[in-house]
Amino acid sequence: MEGQSLKPIRCKAAVCRAAGEPLTIEEIVVDPPKACEIRIKIICTSLCHTDITIWRVKGENVIPPLFPRILGHEAYGVVESVGDNVEEFAVGDAVVPAFLGQCDSCSSCASEETNQCTAVPFVVGPGMRRDGTTRFRDSQGAPLHDFLAISSFSQYAVVDVNQLVKVDPAVPPPLACLLSCGASTGVGAAWRLAKVKPDSSVAIFGLGSVGLAVVQGAKMCGASKIIGVDLNPDKETIGKTFGVTDFVNPSQLGGSSVSEVINAMTGGGADYCFECIGVSSVMTDAVRSTKPGRGKTIILGLEQDGKPLCLPSLEFLLGKCIIGSLLGGVKPKTDIPILAQKCMDKDLELEKLVTHEVGLQEINTAFDLLLQGKSLRSIIWMDK
Amino acid sequence: MEGQSLKPIRCKAAVCRAAGEPLTIEEIVVDPPKACEIRIKIICTSLCHTDITIWRVKGENVIPPLFPRILGHEAYGVVESVGDNVEEFAVGDAVVPAFLGQCDSCSSCASEETNQCTAVPFVVGPGMRRDGTTRFRDSQGAPLHDFLAISSFSQYAVVDVNQLVKVDPAVPPPLACLLSCGASTGVGAAWRLAKVKPDSSVAIFGLGSVGLAVVQGAKMCGASKIIGVDLNPDKETIGKTFGVTDFVNPSQLGGSSVSEVINAMTGGGADYCFECIGVSSVMTDAVRSTKPGRGKTIILGLEQDGKPLCLPSLEFLLGKCIIGSLLGGVKPKTDIPILAQKCMDKDLELEKLVTHEVGLQEINTAFDLLLQGKSLRSIIWMDK
Repeated sequence: MEGQSLKPIRCKAAVCRAAGEPLTIEEIVVDPPKACEIRIKIICTSLCHTDITIWRVKGENVIPPLFPRILGHEAYGVVESVGDNVEEFAVGDAVVPAFLGQCDSCSSCASEETNQCTAVPFVVGPGMRRDGTTRFRDSQGAPLHDFLAISSFSQYAVVDVNQLVKVDPAVPPPLACLLSCGASTGVGAAWRLAKVKPDSSVAIFGLGSVGLAVVQGAKMCGASKIIGVDLNPDKETIGKTFGVTDFVNPSQLGGSSVSEVINAMTGGGADYCFECIGVSSVMTDAVRSTKPGRGKTIILGLEQDGKPLCLPSLEFLLGKCIIGSLLGGVKPKTDIPILAQKCMDKDLELEKLVTHEVGLQEINTAFDLLLQGKSLRSIIWMDK
Repeated sequence: MEGQSLKPIRCKAAVCRAAGEPLTIEEIVVDPPKACEIRIKIICTSLCHTDITIWRVKGENVIPPLFPRILGHEAYGVVESVGDNVEEFAVGDAVVPAFLGQCDSCSSCASEETNQCTAVPFVVGPGMRRDGTTRFRDSQGAPLHDFLAISSFSQYAVVDVNQLVKVDPAVPPPLACLLSCGASTGVGAAWRLAKVKPDSSVAIFGLGSVGLAVVQGAKMCGASKIIGVDLNPDKETIGKTFGVTDFVNPSQLGGSSVSEVINAMTGGGADYCFECIGVSSVMTDAVRSTKPGRGKTIILGLEQDGKPLCLPSLEFLLGKCIIGSLLGGVKPKTDIPILAQKCMDKDLELEKLVTHEVGLQEINTAFDLLLQGKSLRSIIWMDK
């Protein structure tokens, strides 16, 4: 099927028309894929905190608000059609989109030190990565901004060939969906970024989906002490089903600080701390809770209010290391299939992250559940 | 010679009696080494910015002021006597003290990830590391605080066995002296900590002694672009004699920021940035000047005013990494002899760091020269 002969598709999408307002289900138009692009039918998508952050972003944030927009980036689908110059994918392939590309030919893709392809680099702003334009229009023909060049809250979406990952069709769709972003980010942060060593100590700040995926990643790497930190007491039980060995509730420490408690539990500081919330003060707590001399802090959360991370410079002299990342250091085309296999082999148990399932019509319910802390991941089935 | 039979030694030392006041040359008493300690005759010492920071520290800093005190920690000497349980050293050995210990038996010393021995750990505060007491008294018998358990501004000093490094007596004393702290810190930051790769790009903020040692370390590791950043235009010429390939003066950039200029010079950011000044805003500049996806920022400076490092959290999402350290990640007993050999083999040219030589009586001149930016390192000969 050649790119030139493809037609626009009319389908349903959940459109964000204003910051913080409920999404509206609208009929939209999805243009055909251009060269090096693939149009996919989204089977299911899920809601990640980054969608929430962008959905409610107001003018004062470091990321400018931009509407109308189709959010969503964690998804599973099948290839509907391919544009010119696409040889890697064929119609019907089971795929997941990734917000990071992987061209496998640039120096960054060849390097083990980064997962950020420099040939078609990640950008925060909207637009397809090669030409900056959108493939979405509303029923009146007005352009709709995309999100992360994915926009999976639509029944069809166009994705760059570098951003699409083929997965084994035997992988259950909800699991593949989670691996397209949150679950890979969490597991990857422990596995690829921190390179957690056997018998080490780990503290995870925030036991949401990403935090619980870090727990699974740390467990897979052989960490012997996995400390979960969360203000919600219900997270103790759920954390332990994922592999948490010790639980700290910062609101129940009497006069001690979180870092004092973790330092005491680990004989001077955890080997690795993971900040999975996106709160500046928690990032500082995480750094303070790592072991002097070799402690690593991994920053996974996008600061919700755009606040800077502030650290006493003396902490650095103690030989601490702070690592930021996108997608947990995972190279999508290389690592997502490996993680999918680990899930199939039960080395990773990520399916427990799915707590709710809704249809596209109920997508705002998924927002409510996540905002109220009642869900981990809600799978949104696009045909319902 | 047994520890029990050793006598106190009367000798001269430069004593700091109040913050920011000129040091006074006094006759003091140096107690014999206790078990696991060695008393050394200091041949020469030099003045490091950390001495200056502690010398002028007032109440508002994160490090509390503490006087009277004998400063100095970068030095070369010979063993005068050994305490009980010292088998590694004998009278007459050529040695340099190091403010970090290395026991070679704890898990940290066995690890390649840290240079901070946990058996006898580094502490910022005064006192010998095993019992917290000082070996110095003034002529009235009142205790004098030590500094970093070294205090090399004295003709004799007592050092823990873990903190003493044997060096080849063929190494010129001034060179060995510099390797005991500043030169090793700079070279080590590039070599051991950042692990600078061949053909990489490096930016060094602050071309003082430590910064110039980083330049030498980066050159030794094969970096192809070595950008020196300094407000002092004279540093361009001296920087180039050490290996700087490009020079940036932040005061002469028109409307551009340092990070914009470095990003343009390096095609998107330096692979490694080194902050060698100790100014919070420069640390931020350094992080912003590193390459997204894999850029490493090494923090070498102790923030002069105790200010925190503040960074937009979005910088972290770009996959940046910030590493702090003591002694540039160098394990003193393992690495200082290697660096000394590299100097002897002319793989490193560090002797050019010595710009002035004075006697102990003129130690305040060394302070003036460093404060006025007129010197790199002043060697202070203790017998003059």
